[in-house]
Amino acid sequence: MRATEAVVDPVVTGSEAATMKALVYGGPGLRAWQSKPRPVIRDPGDAVVRITATTICGTDLHIMKGDLPAVMPGRILGHEGVGVIEDVGPQVARFRKGDRVLISCVSSCGTCDQCRKGMFSHCRTGGWILGNTIDGTQAEFVRTPHADTSLYALPADADDAAMVMLSDILPTAFECGVLNGQVKPGDTVAIVGAGPIGLAALLTAQFYSPAVIIMVDMDANRLNVAEQLGATWLVNSAEGVAVDRVMALTEGAGVDVAIEAVGIPATFDICQSILAPGGRLANIGVHGKPVQLDLDKLWDRNVAITTRLVDTAVIPMLLKLVQSGKVEPGQLVTHRFALGDIMKAYDTFGNAASERALKVILTA
Amino acid sequence: MRATEAVVDPVVTGSEAATMKALVYGGPGLRAWQSKPRPVIRDPGDAVVRITATTICGTDLHIMKGDLPAVMPGRILGHEGVGVIEDVGPQVARFRKGDRVLISCVSSCGTCDQCRKGMFSHCRTGGWILGNTIDGTQAEFVRTPHADTSLYALPADADDAAMVMLSDILPTAFECGVLNGQVKPGDTVAIVGAGPIGLAALLTAQFYSPAVIIMVDMDANRLNVAEQLGATWLVNSAEGVAVDRVMALTEGAGVDVAIEAVGIPATFDICQSILAPGGRLANIGVHGKPVQLDLDKLWDRNVAITTRLVDTAVIPMLLKLVQSGKVEPGQLVTHRFALGDIMKAYDTFGNAASERALKVILTA
Amino acid sequence: MRATEAVVDPVVTGSEAATMKALVYGGPGLRAWQSKPRPVIRDPGDAVVRITATTICGTDLHIMKGDLPAVMPGRILGHEGVGVIEDVGPQVARFRKGDRVLISCVSSCGTCDQCRKGMFSHCRTGGWILGNTIDGTQAEFVRTPHADTSLYALPADADDAAMVMLSDILPTAFECGVLNGQVKPGDTVAIVGAGPIGLAALLTAQFYSPAVIIMVDMDANRLNVAEQLGATWLVNSAEGVAVDRVMALTEGAGVDVAIEAVGIPATFDICQSILAPGGRLANIGVHGKPVQLDLDKLWDRNVAITTRLVDTAVIPMLLKLVQSGKVEPGQLVTHRFALGDIMKAYDTFGNAASERALKVILTA
Amino acid sequence: MRATEAVVDPVVTGSEAATMKALVYGGPGLRAWQSKPRPVIRDPGDAVVRITATTICGTDLHIMKGDLPAVMPGRILGHEGVGVIEDVGPQVARFRKGDRVLISCVSSCGTCDQCRKGMFSHCRTGGWILGNTIDGTQAEFVRTPHADTSLYALPADADDAAMVMLSDILPTAFECGVLNGQVKPGDTVAIVGAGPIGLAALLTAQFYSPAVIIMVDMDANRLNVAEQLGATWLVNSAEGVAVDRVMALTEGAGVDVAIEAVGIPATFDICQSILAPGGRLANIGVHGKPVQLDLDKLWDRNVAITTRLVDTAVIPMLLKLVQSGKVEPGQLVTHRFALGDIMKAYDTFGNAASERALKVILTA
Repeated sequence: MRATEAVVDPVVTGSEAATMKALVYGGPGLRAWQSKPRPVIRDPGDAVVRITATTICGTDLHIMKGDLPAVMPGRILGHEGVGVIEDVGPQVARFRKGDRVLISCVSSCGTCDQCRKGMFSHCRTGGWILGNTIDGTQAEFVRTPHADTSLYALPADADDAAMVMLSDILPTAFECGVLNGQVKPGDTVAIVGAGPIGLAALLTAQFYSPAVIIMVDMDANRLNVAEQLGATWLVNSAEGVAVDRVMALTEGAGVDVAIEAVGIPATFDICQSILAPGGRLANIGVHGKPVQLDLDKLWDRNVAITTRLVDTAVIPMLLKLVQSGKVEPGQLVTHRFALGDIMKAYDTFGNAASERALKVILTA
Repeated sequence: MRATEAVVDPVVTGSEAATMKALVYGGPGLRAWQSKPRPVIRDPGDAVVRITATTICGTDLHIMKGDLPAVMPGRILGHEGVGVIEDVGPQVARFRKGDRVLISCVSSCGTCDQCRKGMFSHCRTGGWILGNTIDGTQAEFVRTPHADTSLYALPADADDAAMVMLSDILPTAFECGVLNGQVKPGDTVAIVGAGPIGLAALLTAQFYSPAVIIMVDMDANRLNVAEQLGATWLVNSAEGVAVDRVMALTEGAGVDVAIEAVGIPATFDICQSILAPGGRLANIGVHGKPVQLDLDKLWDRNVAITTRLVDTAVIPMLLKLVQSGKVEPGQLVTHRFALGDIMKAYDTFGNAASERALKVILTA
Repeated sequence: MRATEAVVDPVVTGSEAATMKALVYGGPGLRAWQSKPRPVIRDPGDAVVRITATTICGTDLHIMKGDLPAVMPGRILGHEGVGVIEDVGPQVARFRKGDRVLISCVSSCGTCDQCRKGMFSHCRTGGWILGNTIDGTQAEFVRTPHADTSLYALPADADDAAMVMLSDILPTAFECGVLNGQVKPGDTVAIVGAGPIGLAALLTAQFYSPAVIIMVDMDANRLNVAEQLGATWLVNSAEGVAVDRVMALTEGAGVDVAIEAVGIPATFDICQSILAPGGRLANIGVHGKPVQLDLDKLWDRNVAITTRLVDTAVIPMLLKLVQSGKVEPGQLVTHRFALGDIMKAYDTFGNAASERALKVILTA
Repeated sequence: MRATEAVVDPVVTGSEAATMKALVYGGPGLRAWQSKPRPVIRDPGDAVVRITATTICGTDLHIMKGDLPAVMPGRILGHEGVGVIEDVGPQVARFRKGDRVLISCVSSCGTCDQCRKGMFSHCRTGGWILGNTIDGTQAEFVRTPHADTSLYALPADADDAAMVMLSDILPTAFECGVLNGQVKPGDTVAIVGAGPIGLAALLTAQFYSPAVIIMVDMDANRLNVAEQLGATWLVNSAEGVAVDRVMALTEGAGVDVAIEAVGIPATFDICQSILAPGGRLANIGVHGKPVQLDLDKLWDRNVAITTRLVDTAVIPMLLKLVQSGKVEPGQLVTHRFALGDIMKAYDTFGNAASERALKVILTA
């Protein structure tokens, strides 16, 4: 756990404390939409944002399973969101009450050694803390530390649902998958996993005009979506012959870039088995256990394997590309709910395959 | 096996066939210094080189153990050497009889797709073939394919022993370790393994002025050599606390670059355990089995892990640096033999620890 | 003049010498479609190609004006083309009679120091020599040196007209303009000059998904074409206020990348005047005289200015992108002629503005 | 002028206002060591630093000549310095009274778009403002805006004189010259200008182990210093044949990197005339007028020309290299004065050639 903020938010008591509704984690398998004190400014660089749109991340489901023990019962979940500034601390210079903002899933101070190197994900007093070690965005209001360097002003005509995709999923797919994979014009790219993050990699890989994108997944519905979003070839890995299929499609050459967008040993193994000499394996998946790396086969193959927690350094760039119509992140949204119906939204997202759910949007 | 050359050299028979002496692999554990036909030009791009200096590589010891089954009994070993051109094929434009040359351990045609990308190691008709799938340099003469793009003219005053280090060990350490590790001024670098290849990484890492180089090995003698060659700190891994020591030396930060120069799971594990966020793990070691990659710990650490077979693209650059006195590869030579005493040299090199041997040089 | 080949091709005499028709430069202002000896293999790496499609380059017009004195009267012009192998020298390993090939405008040996670094444009025995210091492609047949590394096999279904665009104009626009300009997703790019090379830069800049491409030219027709090919904004520089217009369109920020695609001081000056801090000015234009560089304004602006003769290293990548439908270079072709009508094609191309001509294609 | 801070510091009046001594610019040719009000915290991110060491920059001499009209009479000069924190504003989190600090010549907020990209030199509320648009460091005290991101903690054993070299001259030479010039191991580098900045480029270019460094200057004394600091070859440009000499020394090949460290057309012209194909020209010099760029000769030479105002992003790295003994910036110091003798120090530095002065140090 990188976060150095105190993990316990201040408790506000007394009759004058305003309240709000929020999605509260109660321990493995337990969640509730319940009343909580409205957050207030705590540090001078904080902002309080009234949420107008948020979403649920695959990571939230991991938390619900108890896979992330650092998340304590009582925590408000959520690290993605769009909203309106309600209040700012005295050090906040770039925003004021009433501004529409995009909330980055990564908080960064901008002044520590890691931030000065551009590695905001490993900020000494930030990183991924929202909905993790401090309260998050699945609520009517959220306190966001380091507001000047963790919020982004939104264009007047921005669509909330599309914008929420820029909090985490598009930057993550692009930075961890596409940039780390060094996708180049003419490349052959395989993306293993056609869930929301893999599909976001599919959308953003096209910024670099690869010649071929092969999408690998076990879910026929998701592969169909991938085809609509620009995949060249589809490989159903349920048949257990994904590696053979990819090698056949590439005439034995393998791929220039393999993007791991699941986070389990089996999908990592597909990735390492299909790399051409000189290829790059860009891991996006959140892994819960070690994998086997076949260095006996790979030591002389001139490959690179990368990992990354998203820095969200590309949010300003993504805003420009959305504005200019080069990418439509709203394509990833399959279901919409009112924020007050978030318990139902969790049910839907938790049964993604049968519900054919990709991203669900909650608006207030 | 990348090589597409026929693995069997032509057999020359009859009374007129000239002979020479060569170190011939006879199967696991078996080697002999025996008579063989002198090589002749076979393809129009070939040269035949009279060897004036060669050496024994750790890989040759692996072959002797039977670890590389592609190497067939009857093969002349050796992929490093310096010599004088004896004969050239009709397509050879850059060399002629009498020229002093350095032999690259990697043969490359210069015209296939891999060579055009600069990845000579994966040349469609070359790569590491000498002393592997065709006869090598531990002999009085050797045939070198693709001579124009696999040999390098030597300066008149070049020292044979220093030059032989440029056939393989310095390019390998530099390309696979230092370049892939992206060593930068001010970096903290750990090199795990202080054998010849690790020490060559130590020499060449200094081209980029890291602030600190930590050398990790189990052999106190080799660590002493490392200190003389520029290591900042020494860590003896025999004590089983190498990771703790490195973390303590870096005040808990870890290293920017970890160079794996052994090729076994234990040393890879040290490397992956000492990486700072944003760090690079550059593998040089030849691995005989898979390793465990701790993606559960590394998925959010923004690290890169690289592998590479040497391209020897840096040989012209290394020649310049040797000429200008910026590096003295002769420092790696501990023992000298006449070529005819190569059986004894193998004994010495095979007992490197007790003999305090790094590189042995054989001259004719 | 970089070429080290003899500038005089061998003269074939006698009744048995086959002849062909070719476009021959006769000195400034003089050209003729006349009989010439059919080329034959001269060096062992040569091929002779029967031309099936060629085109005329802006550089050919410069030659006709006498701007390139190295081009001697009697020279067959042309450095772009597609054809069928008629004959190969004994060293040619990758092609044989009957193969369809694309001819690179740059000949490269693959073995000299410059080629080994990937800078084929400065090959010690190649570079731009076709239609310059040796006879070129505006003929029924052409001799191409270094065939293995200067020709590219064509897919069976390739369209000749589209492919001819890959000999020079697309690689030049992409390497000198887009790659050197480091165009990135989200960038604001200005291309000064909407002739064939500027429009090719427009097509290939889109490989990297810039947010905005501003096209600057004096010709309203060419700007209209630019709009159809993807330009975001059009600026007519005939009005003399191009710099002001670009700065206004970018709200005073200037552009991330300015691509100079004309080759005169006035267009260079526009480029240097619109760069944002950190911007790149990528010169493609062939300049006949020096320009003024405003270092008094630029010394502290963190800019880069680049020049380049095309290496055509990207031809294999472009072939993949054409095959996968990511770019349609045939869009640049406005006029088609039979090869025998090349005199008329020169007239049309020489009056490009009034003829609304971009690229003219000649087929045999 | 990039600075957006108000150019007039607040005037403190009344008997309680503390005073100090400072070097005040009085208009072209005029300077005085006089009493000024001691600076106080103005913005919440400010610090006030008691100066213990400072120096005079060539830019200060330009100001004295009236070359930088943005500098108004009454301004305290100086943008380099080391000192002790006297006071901090309420937003300053990283420093407190009594800390020893290095002052960067560039102030950066860390939160604007330019800072987030790492281009601190073009910070929207910073950049080079000290001793330019706000009062500077040639004084007993200085107010430093954006303290958290513009000051650096000093090691306990740091030598003030060496550290002052890290405020400007070493970062400038390294970032603008060595990094922008992409100096690589084995390169041939020419540095035109052996004044303090050129010599700092000479020191820091060696971080990358070029094979050859050619130093060009008209002053024999400075060339002698260059030789002691590691130059391979010396070329006296007073003889007017610098280009010929460099080309002869490189056997006609030219240099990989030319670093311009003067700032006049004649030295820029030497640089552009000695570039090898593929070479980089890194400009450091502050130019007062445009130069002629020979694009007619360079358009096909694959060169890059760069400019840059120092970002000082490398200060943490340089601190590590000084600590580890890889570079000794104190070698550039030739004269030492008490701060109160700064008028005399200006005289000495203003007659650098006759005084054989490089950097002068003033300590308090």
